[in-house]
Amino acid sequence: MDQAVPQGFRSYTANMGLKDSAHDFAVVVSEVPAVSAAVYTKSRFAGPSVVLSRADTAAQRSRGMVVVSRNANVATGRVGAAHAEEVRRLAAAKAGVRPEELVIGSTGVIGRPYPIEGIREGIAAIPTPLPPADFEAAAAAIMTTDTRAKSVHLRCGDAVVVGIAKGVGMIEPGMATLLAFFFTDAELAPERLDAVFRRVVDRTFNALSIDTDTSTSDSAAVFANGLAGPVDEAGFEQVLYRAALALVRDIASDGEGAGKLLEVRVTGARDAAQAKRAGKAVVNSPLVKTSVHGADPNWGRVAMAVGKLDEDLDIEPSRTRIHYGELEMFPEEPDEEMLARARRYLSGDEVVIRIDLGIADGAFTVYGCDLTEGYVGLNSGYTT
Amino acid sequence: MDQAVPQGFRSYTANMGLKDSAHDFAVVVSEVPAVSAAVYTKSRFAGPSVVLSRADTAAQRSRGMVVVSRNANVATGRVGAAHAEEVRRLAAAKAGVRPEELVIGSTGVIGRPYPIEGIREGIAAIPTPLPPADFEAAAAAIMTTDTRAKSVHLRCGDAVVVGIAKGVGMIEPGMATLLAFFFTDAELAPERLDAVFRRVVDRTFNALSIDTDTSTSDSAAVFANGLAGPVDEAGFEQVLYRAALALVRDIASDGEGAGKLLEVRVTGARDAAQAKRAGKAVVNSPLVKTSVHGADPNWGRVAMAVGKLDEDLDIEPSRTRIHYGELEMFPEEPDEEMLARARRYLSGDEVVIRIDLGIADGAFTVYGCDLTEGYVGLNSGYTT
Repeated sequence: MDQAVPQGFRSYTANMGLKDSAHDFAVVVSEVPAVSAAVYTKSRFAGPSVVLSRADTAAQRSRGMVVVSRNANVATGRVGAAHAEEVRRLAAAKAGVRPEELVIGSTGVIGRPYPIEGIREGIAAIPTPLPPADFEAAAAAIMTTDTRAKSVHLRCGDAVVVGIAKGVGMIEPGMATLLAFFFTDAELAPERLDAVFRRVVDRTFNALSIDTDTSTSDSAAVFANGLAGPVDEAGFEQVLYRAALALVRDIASDGEGAGKLLEVRVTGARDAAQAKRAGKAVVNSPLVKTSVHGADPNWGRVAMAVGKLDEDLDIEPSRTRIHYGELEMFPEEPDEEMLARARRYLSGDEVVIRIDLGIADGAFTVYGCDLTEGYVGLNSGYTT
Repeated sequence: MDQAVPQGFRSYTANMGLKDSAHDFAVVVSEVPAVSAAVYTKSRFAGPSVVLSRADTAAQRSRGMVVVSRNANVATGRVGAAHAEEVRRLAAAKAGVRPEELVIGSTGVIGRPYPIEGIREGIAAIPTPLPPADFEAAAAAIMTTDTRAKSVHLRCGDAVVVGIAKGVGMIEPGMATLLAFFFTDAELAPERLDAVFRRVVDRTFNALSIDTDTSTSDSAAVFANGLAGPVDEAGFEQVLYRAALALVRDIASDGEGAGKLLEVRVTGARDAAQAKRAGKAVVNSPLVKTSVHGADPNWGRVAMAVGKLDEDLDIEPSRTRIHYGELEMFPEEPDEEMLARARRYLSGDEVVIRIDLGIADGAFTVYGCDLTEGYVGLNSGYTT
C-alpha cells in the first residue's frame, strides 16, 4: 500500500493509563485551517464526546480529532460531560487549535468515568508543536479489541487521502461506524466535501454490520486542509470511497472473533433501499453467520433471512435466486457435487452471498462477518 | 404439574425415517368437531404446510394437527407443495377427519424434499381408530434440536387445557413461535376463541426471541372441542395465558445452546409498543446476551441496546433506570460490592433485566436467552 501522506498534519499518541502499556490517546490535527464533514451515531445514549463534537459539525471547520480509547465515557452523567469538554480543551491547547476545531471521540467500556488524573498528566506532557503526523501510530492508539491497526493511504492527483478506523464489535451503524477519520490535503468547498462524504458513508460504513449492536460512540469525519490544491470532485469521491471500503472490509474481517469476511450482494430489488434491507437481514442473521463459520452450505437459511422482510410483498420465492459466489443454490437444487463445491467455497476467508430478487434493478452490497465461538468468548467477559 | 387431559382427543406418533429412531411424526385430533384459532409466520418464504393450513384458518373448524419433524419442507417448489397436501390428506383419512380440519406443521432443515416414501408407508401403518391422546409423546415427536419435550397441563373449571410446543432456534416470531398447539375440551364460540388466542399469543410467543431469525414454519393453534361445556372467558384466557407463558419460558431456557432464561421487563414507556421495542432491542442484543452468559455486569450494554431506538426521541438517559433483578445499575453508579452482587445474580439460571424509561406507564415483558459458544457450535454444522 502506498504510504504517501497528506501535507500539513501533525499528531501525537501516548499511553495515559487506560490500556496496560499500548497507546490509548491520539490527537491528529492540520497545522492550517481545514474544512470538514462528520456523521455520528443516532443512539439515544450517545455519549458526551459525540454530543460535543456534533454541536460543532455544522461549522464544517474541524481541523482534526482527539481520541481516548478503551473507555467510551458514556452514561457517566455530568462528570462525563465535564471530562469530555476538559479533554478536548486541553488537547486543543496543546495542538494550537480552538476546542471547537477538534472532533473528540471515545470508545470502550460504557458507564465508567475516565481515569481523568492520568489523562490530565498525559496531555500536560504533550510536546509543542506536535510532531509531524504518524497516522499508523494514531490508527494503533484508537484500537480497542481490534487485532490489528487499520489504515489506508491513497493518492488523488496531487493530493493524498489517509483513512484510519477502529471497531470490531457493537457495529450496526445507523449512521457511522465506531471511529473512522480521513485526512487529506485536497481542496474542496465544505458543502461539496459534506455531500461527497455522506454518499461515501452510506455505501460503506452504513453497509457494515458486525453484530446488529449500535455503538453510543460512532463517529466518522473527514478533514481537508487544501494544501495540495483543488481536486476533481468525482475523482476525489472515488478515492474516498475506495479508502472507506478498504477500511470497512478490514473492519469486517477483523470483527470480534470473526474468521471470515461476509459480503452480501443483493440485485434485482425494487430499489436500493429494499436491496439494503434484504442484505442486512442476511448479513445479520445468526443462523446464516454460523453456517458460514462452519462452511455449511445451508442456503435455506439465506432464504429464511430474506423471508423476514414480511412487509416486502413483492419478494417471492418463485423469482428469487441464491448463489454462494458463482454456485447456484436456489432455485436449482444443488446436487451432492455442488454441495461439496459450496463447502470448499465457504471454507475460504471471503464469502460472497449473491441474492437476486427478480423484481427490478435495485442493488446494494453489505458487509459483515461470520459468528464464531470466539465472538461469544470475547464478549462474555469484556469488562471484568 | 397436573397431568389432567382434555376429553375426546386421540393421537399417534411414529418414526418415519426423518430422525434416526425417535418419533418424527405426530397427529393429534379431536374425535368430535371442534372450533379453532391459529396464527402463522409472516415469512415471505413460508412453506407449503403454512400456506395449506392458513387457507383453512378462517373456517375456525380445525380438529387437530399433523406434524412432520426434522424437515421443514420449505423452498422445495411444486414437489414440496404436493407432499404437504398428500401428507395432510393421508393423515386426515386415518384420523377420520376431513383434510381441511387438520393443521399441518413442518419443522427442520430447509430446501430438502420430504423422504416421502417412508412417510407414506408410515401413515399407511397408522391404526384406526387412533389411540387415546398421548400429549407427551406428541410433544416429543415434534422436537428438532430441543433438548427436552415441552408440555403443560392446566385445569380451567371442568375443562382442561394442554399445550405442547417445540422450537429452540430461528425464533423471533413475527406472529407465532415455531410450533405450539393447545388442546382443550372447553366450549367457546369460535370468534371468542380467536380473540382470546390472539391476545395471549401477543403477550407470550410474540414476546419471545431466541436469535432474531424468523422461521418459515411458525405455527400456533388452539383446538377446543367443547366436551367439558362452557367456560368463563376471562378465566379461560388467564389459563391459556399461563399455559402459553410456561411454554415460552421453557422454550427460552432451552434456546439453542442457552444456559439461562433472560427476561426483560420494560416499564415507564410511552405505551406498550414502545416498551416491547425496547425489550426486544435488549433481549436481541448479542452483546447483552453474551454478557449475561458470562455473568458480567456490563449494564452499559443494556443502555446501548435501549439507545438503538433512535426514532424514540422521548427516550432519555437522564430519566432511564436499569436494574439487574433488584440491583440498580443506572443511574446510581454501582460500587464494587454492588458489582459483585450483580455478578452473583447473573450467575443464576434466570436473569431479569428491568428497564424503566420514566416516560409514562406503558409496559411489556419479553423473553429470550443468553448467547453461548454452544449456540455457535450447534448452528455451525446443522445440515452436514
